[in-house]
Amino acid sequence: MIVVMKPGAPEESVEEVIRLIKETSYQPHVLRGALQTVIAAVGDGREKSRIESLESLNYVERVLPILKPFKLASRETVEGDTIVKVNDVEIGGKRLAIMAGPCSVEGMEQIIGIARDVKQSGANILRGGAFKPRTSPYSFQGLAEEGLKMLAAAREATGLPIVTEIMNPREVDLVYQYTDIMQIGARNVQNFSLLKEVGKLDKPILLKRGLSTTIDEWLMSAEYILAEGNRNVILCERGIRTFETATRNTLDLSAVPVAKARTHLPIVVDPSHGTGYWQYVSALAKAAVAVGADGLMIEVHNKPEIAFSDGAQSLKPKKFDILMKEIAPIAEAVGRTL
Amino acid sequence: MIVVMKPGAPEESVEEVIRLIKETSYQPHVLRGALQTVIAAVGDGREKSRIESLESLNYVERVLPILKPFKLASRETVEGDTIVKVNDVEIGGKRLAIMAGPCSVEGMEQIIGIARDVKQSGANILRGGAFKPRTSPYSFQGLAEEGLKMLAAAREATGLPIVTEIMNPREVDLVYQYTDIMQIGARNVQNFSLLKEVGKLDKPILLKRGLSTTIDEWLMSAEYILAEGNRNVILCERGIRTFETATRNTLDLSAVPVAKARTHLPIVVDPSHGTGYWQYVSALAKAAVAVGADGLMIEVHNKPEIAFSDGAQSLKPKKFDILMKEIAPIAEAVGRTL
Amino acid sequence: MIVVMKPGAPEESVEEVIRLIKETSYQPHVLRGALQTVIAAVGDGREKSRIESLESLNYVERVLPILKPFKLASRETVEGDTIVKVNDVEIGGKRLAIMAGPCSVEGMEQIIGIARDVKQSGANILRGGAFKPRTSPYSFQGLAEEGLKMLAAAREATGLPIVTEIMNPREVDLVYQYTDIMQIGARNVQNFSLLKEVGKLDKPILLKRGLSTTIDEWLMSAEYILAEGNRNVILCERGIRTFETATRNTLDLSAVPVAKARTHLPIVVDPSHGTGYWQYVSALAKAAVAVGADGLMIEVHNKPEIAFSDGAQSLKPKKFDILMKEIAPIAEAVGRTL
Amino acid sequence: MIVVMKPGAPEESVEEVIRLIKETSYQPHVLRGALQTVIAAVGDGREKSRIESLESLNYVERVLPILKPFKLASRETVEGDTIVKVNDVEIGGKRLAIMAGPCSVEGMEQIIGIARDVKQSGANILRGGAFKPRTSPYSFQGLAEEGLKMLAAAREATGLPIVTEIMNPREVDLVYQYTDIMQIGARNVQNFSLLKEVGKLDKPILLKRGLSTTIDEWLMSAEYILAEGNRNVILCERGIRTFETATRNTLDLSAVPVAKARTHLPIVVDPSHGTGYWQYVSALAKAAVAVGADGLMIEVHNKPEIAFSDGAQSLKPKKFDILMKEIAPIAEAVGRTL
Repeated sequence: MIVVMKPGAPEESVEEVIRLIKETSYQPHVLRGALQTVIAAVGDGREKSRIESLESLNYVERVLPILKPFKLASRETVEGDTIVKVNDVEIGGKRLAIMAGPCSVEGMEQIIGIARDVKQSGANILRGGAFKPRTSPYSFQGLAEEGLKMLAAAREATGLPIVTEIMNPREVDLVYQYTDIMQIGARNVQNFSLLKEVGKLDKPILLKRGLSTTIDEWLMSAEYILAEGNRNVILCERGIRTFETATRNTLDLSAVPVAKARTHLPIVVDPSHGTGYWQYVSALAKAAVAVGADGLMIEVHNKPEIAFSDGAQSLKPKKFDILMKEIAPIAEAVGRTL
Repeated sequence: MIVVMKPGAPEESVEEVIRLIKETSYQPHVLRGALQTVIAAVGDGREKSRIESLESLNYVERVLPILKPFKLASRETVEGDTIVKVNDVEIGGKRLAIMAGPCSVEGMEQIIGIARDVKQSGANILRGGAFKPRTSPYSFQGLAEEGLKMLAAAREATGLPIVTEIMNPREVDLVYQYTDIMQIGARNVQNFSLLKEVGKLDKPILLKRGLSTTIDEWLMSAEYILAEGNRNVILCERGIRTFETATRNTLDLSAVPVAKARTHLPIVVDPSHGTGYWQYVSALAKAAVAVGADGLMIEVHNKPEIAFSDGAQSLKPKKFDILMKEIAPIAEAVGRTL
Repeated sequence: MIVVMKPGAPEESVEEVIRLIKETSYQPHVLRGALQTVIAAVGDGREKSRIESLESLNYVERVLPILKPFKLASRETVEGDTIVKVNDVEIGGKRLAIMAGPCSVEGMEQIIGIARDVKQSGANILRGGAFKPRTSPYSFQGLAEEGLKMLAAAREATGLPIVTEIMNPREVDLVYQYTDIMQIGARNVQNFSLLKEVGKLDKPILLKRGLSTTIDEWLMSAEYILAEGNRNVILCERGIRTFETATRNTLDLSAVPVAKARTHLPIVVDPSHGTGYWQYVSALAKAAVAVGADGLMIEVHNKPEIAFSDGAQSLKPKKFDILMKEIAPIAEAVGRTL
Repeated sequence: MIVVMKPGAPEESVEEVIRLIKETSYQPHVLRGALQTVIAAVGDGREKSRIESLESLNYVERVLPILKPFKLASRETVEGDTIVKVNDVEIGGKRLAIMAGPCSVEGMEQIIGIARDVKQSGANILRGGAFKPRTSPYSFQGLAEEGLKMLAAAREATGLPIVTEIMNPREVDLVYQYTDIMQIGARNVQNFSLLKEVGKLDKPILLKRGLSTTIDEWLMSAEYILAEGNRNVILCERGIRTFETATRNTLDLSAVPVAKARTHLPIVVDPSHGTGYWQYVSALAKAAVAVGADGLMIEVHNKPEIAFSDGAQSLKPKKFDILMKEIAPIAEAVGRTL
C-alpha cells in the first residue's frame, strides 16, 4: 500500500501514520519528495482494511493499493491454465466450449428439440434456465424443479451436459442433483453467501460478471468460491452496463485478455446478453473467439417471437448452425478447434 | 407497448405482428406514418415479455414499453405517502429519520459508546453491520450473531431501534430475532430469492439501491417485497457506479425527487457510501435533506483510523454532532424536523 | 510517480527502469517488498509522460501518479477563494450568483420579458444561448449575432450582466463584444484550442463539466485557461452521463465539495441540464445551495411547451420565483445570501 | 414521436396536446388504453424539438422518439456501402484499411523509420499526430506544422497516404495542405463548429467516437459533416468511458455491427486507445476484424518506453508485424483481405 500525504503535511502527521502502520503487520518506508511525502506500507495484504482506514486522517490524501487482491485465482499461484472438466468436455483446453440453448426451459418438447438442434450444429453443453432472475415479480419466474427435470431429460436424449442457474442458497441441494455446471448469474456475482455455498460443492461453477463489476472484483468473487475448496470456476463475460442504449449491455471483450493476464481460470463469452439483439450475436461470437475466449454461451430458441423471455436476443437453430460454420476458421486461426 | 416497424416493412410483416399480438391478452392498434408503421399493443402488462419477444422479428425495429412496470410501489396505487413505523420512530413523516453508527460492529464497548454518542447528537436509529459483504473473502466478514447481540445490548442501553444487514436467506430467522429494520445491501438489490424471503416478514426492510440499478429497477425490487405482503419498505440511495474516481460512488440525489414522483415509499440517503470520504459526508448530508430525503444513514466511528472497515468514510462523533446542528435549519427550511 | 514492478520481475528489469528514470528530470527511489518491487520517481511533473511510457516495459505492472496534475487551479497555489467579479456581481463570495434565463434566445420580446421576470425574482445574471450546440444539424442552431444583440438589449433593459456560449474560436471576437461572461459548454470542455483562445481574454469564463469528464480532468481544462493568463474561471457542474435514464444526466453534487477541496475557483450548479425535467429542478437547486455551491444556473422560459429547445427542463417564471423564496432560508443555513 | 400522457390525465390536457401538435407540421393520432392515453405525432422530424418540449406539460409523462434522427448517414438513404478512396486505398471495400504509426510525430528519423516498418508489415495508411489534444497544458502538444512536414516526408519516402488530427477550425487550411485524411478526435466529436468546417472540404474525414457518445449521437456528428457536402466520412470506434479501470477505455466492438446496421459509412477500430495497453492490442485487433470492421488504427512506436505520449499502448514494429500475420487468416474467414 502507498500512503500519500497531503502537500505540506506536518512532520507529526507523518509520524502518526508511521506509528499506526507499525501497529499492524505492515512495515512503513518513508519517501520524501519536493512537494509530498509518500509512505509505502509493505505487508501481505491481510490487514489491508486497516491501512485503508488511514485515509481518514486529516493529512492523508489517498491510500493506493499495490498488490493485486486475489491469491488462488491469480496467475502467480497456479502454473498454466486451469482446465475444467465436465464429463468428456474440457473448458479451457484447445477445443472451444459451446454452451447453447434457450433462455428459459419452457416445456419438454421445446428443450429436447433445441438440445438436439444445437448438438447437431456442434454445441457441447446445453444451457437452459429453470430458476429465472427477472426484474419484475410478475414476469415468468421459471419452471423450477419441473424445468430441471426437463433439462435432465434433454441431457439423457442428447448426451450433452447441462448448465443452469442457481439463485438461492436454499436451492443448492436441489439444483446440484440435476445439473452438471451451476451458473451464478450477473446479479448474484457479489452474493457472497451464495458464492460460499457453491464453493463447497464438487461441481463446476460458471460465474458471470456483474453489470458493474470490475474485472478485479469479479476475480475476487471467483476467489470466494476457490477459497472454499471448489477450484472449478469458469468465468463468463456477458456485458457491462454503460450509457449506450443501442445494445442491452456493452460486451467488454477486452475482459478476456485482461482476465487471462491475471488468472489461470477459463473464460467464456455470452454475446446474447452482451448485445440483447440476435442481429448482433453472430458478429460478437466470432469476435469473442478471435479475442481468445475459451468458449461461448449462446441463447438459441426455435420460436423466439413467442419466447417466455429474451426472445429478441435468441438465435434460431438454423442461424446458430450457420454461425458454427463461420466460427470454425476463426477458431483455427487462433489455434482452437470446435 | 409500442411496436415500431422498420421503414419499408412489408404489409405481411405488419400483419404477422398484429396476429401475434392478438394471440396474447393485448389488443393491437395500427398507426401508419409516412416513413414507418407503429403498432400500439394495449394491455395490462402481464404478458409483457411476449410482446417484448416480438423484437426478434426481422421487420420489427424496437419494442418500447409505455406503462411503468411497478404496481404496489406506484404512486397511483397508494394515496399519500407510506410512513414506516419502528417503535416510536416514523420514517417518511415530518421528522427526519437519522440512522447512524459504525460500518461494522467491532466490540461491545465500541457499539454502545457510539450508540450513546449518536443518540446524544439526535440520531433516532442505530446502524451497525454484523454480516458484512466484502469484496475479498480475506477481509473482516463481521461478528455474525455475536455482533447482533452487541447491537441488541446497545439498543437496550440507549433505546434506539437498530438496522442491520441480512445477506443470506438462511440467516433471516436469526437476524429477525435481533433487529428492528432489516437492510438489503446494494449488492443484493436484485437477489430476488432474498427479496422474496424478507417480503414475508413483518419487520421493515431498508432496500439500498444497487451500484448500477436504475431507479425503475430498484422500485421493481421493492415490488418483489411488497408483492409478498410486506408493505414496510424504506428505499436508500447510496451512490451509483460511474467513471468518476474522486468519490467511491456518485451519489445520485436526483433519485430522491424522481423516486418520490413514482412511489409512495419513503427514501433515505447514505452519503457515507455515496462519497467514500468523511470530508464530503457533511456537505452531501445537508444536500440530501434539502433535496427532500426522509432521512439519512451515516457512518460514525470513534476511531476511524483503526476501523475494521470503511474508516475513510466514517465521521467522528464530534463531527457528527456538528453536522446535526448544521442540518437543523435546512430541515426547517424544507418543512422537516430533526 | 510510483512504478510498480510485476511480481518476480528480474533485477535487470528494475535496473532498466532506474536507468530510464535517471534519463529524465526525475529521481528514482527503490522499495523492495516481499512480493513486489516499487520504484518511486520523484520529480516536478513536467516529464510525466516519459515516466508513464515506462508502463510499456514488460516487467512494469502499472505506473501510478501521485501529484495532482493541476498547478494554477490548485488550492496549494492560491490562498483563499477566487472571487470572480462581473460588474457589481461577485461569484464565489457570500452572495450566491443566480444565472437564469432561457435555453435559447428566441426573440426580443421573449428575452427581455424573461430577463425582467428573473431579475424581479432575484436573479443577478441573465443566461441565454445565441450559438447552440445541437446533436442534430437539422435542429435550431441559435440566432447567432442577432441573438447576441437581443441579449445586449435585455442587459440594457434590466442591468443584468449576461452569460452566453461560445463554440468556435473564429467567433471569439464577435461574442466578446456582447457578453459579460463567456460559457464553454460541456461538449467543448476538452476543446483545447478553444480553451487557449478564451484564456487570452480579460472576461470571465464559465467552464461546464463534460459529460464524461472526471473532476481532475475538468480542473485541467480550467488550467488551460489559467495558463494563458485569464484567472477568472467559474466552474459549472451540469450532470454527467451514466446508465440512469430517468434523468437526462446524473447531477454530481459531490463534485462541489470535491472541487472546492482541490481548487480555489468558484463553482456553480446547473440543475436544469443536470436533471432534464423541470419537475426535479427545484429540489436539486436547493440541494446545490446546501452542498455549498457558489451559485446556480437555471433555465427559465415563459412558454416552455413551445420552446425552440429544452422546454422540458425549463421552469416558468412563477415557479422560478417560488424557488427563489424557498432557497433563501437554505442559503442562510449555509452562511450565504441571495 | 409518441407522447405518453400520465395515468388519469384529464381530457382537456389531452386536447391541449392535440392542439399544440396541430400548431406544428405534425399530425396527432390518439390511442386510449385502459390506464394511459398515448398520442402519436406523425411528421418528418424537422420540428422535433417542438414536440419534445411538450414534455414540459403537467400531464405529459414522456415523449418518445420513433424515427432515427439521421438522414444522409442512414442506410435507408444510400444503397450499398460507402467506400472512401484515398489514392489507391479503399476504406470500406474488401481489403482492410490498416492505419499504423506513432501517437505523436517526434522527429524526422522516427516517423520515416516507423513508416517504412509498418509499410513492410502490410499497413496501407500512416498515422501520426502533429497537433495533440492533451489533458494537461504542460504535456507535449505536438510539433505542429513541423510535424506535418515530417509526415509529408514519410509519405514521400513510402508512398503511404497519411491521416492526422485537426483540432482547431483556424488550422484547417494548414492541415489540409499536408494530410490525406483528416482526423476528428474523440474529444471533438461534438465540436460542431469544427465538424461544419471539415464538412466543406474534399478530403476524407476520420471521425472518432467520443468517450461518452452513443452510437446514434456519433452518427449525428457524421451527419453534420455529410450535410455540408463532404460524403467521405470514416467512423472510428476507439473505446468508451466506463467504470472499468483495468483498461484505459472499454472498446465497444458491438458498435461495429450496430453502426453497420444503421449507416452505409465505413467503420474502423482503434484497439490502442480502446485498451490503453499494448499487451491487449493484438487480441482486440483480431476481434475487431472478426466482428466486421473495415480496418484498424494501431499505434506503433520503435521505442515506446521513451515515447513522448501513449508509450504504454504502442506496439513495437516487430509485434505489429506478428499481428499482421495473425490477422490474415481471420480476415480471410470473414471474407476480407489484407
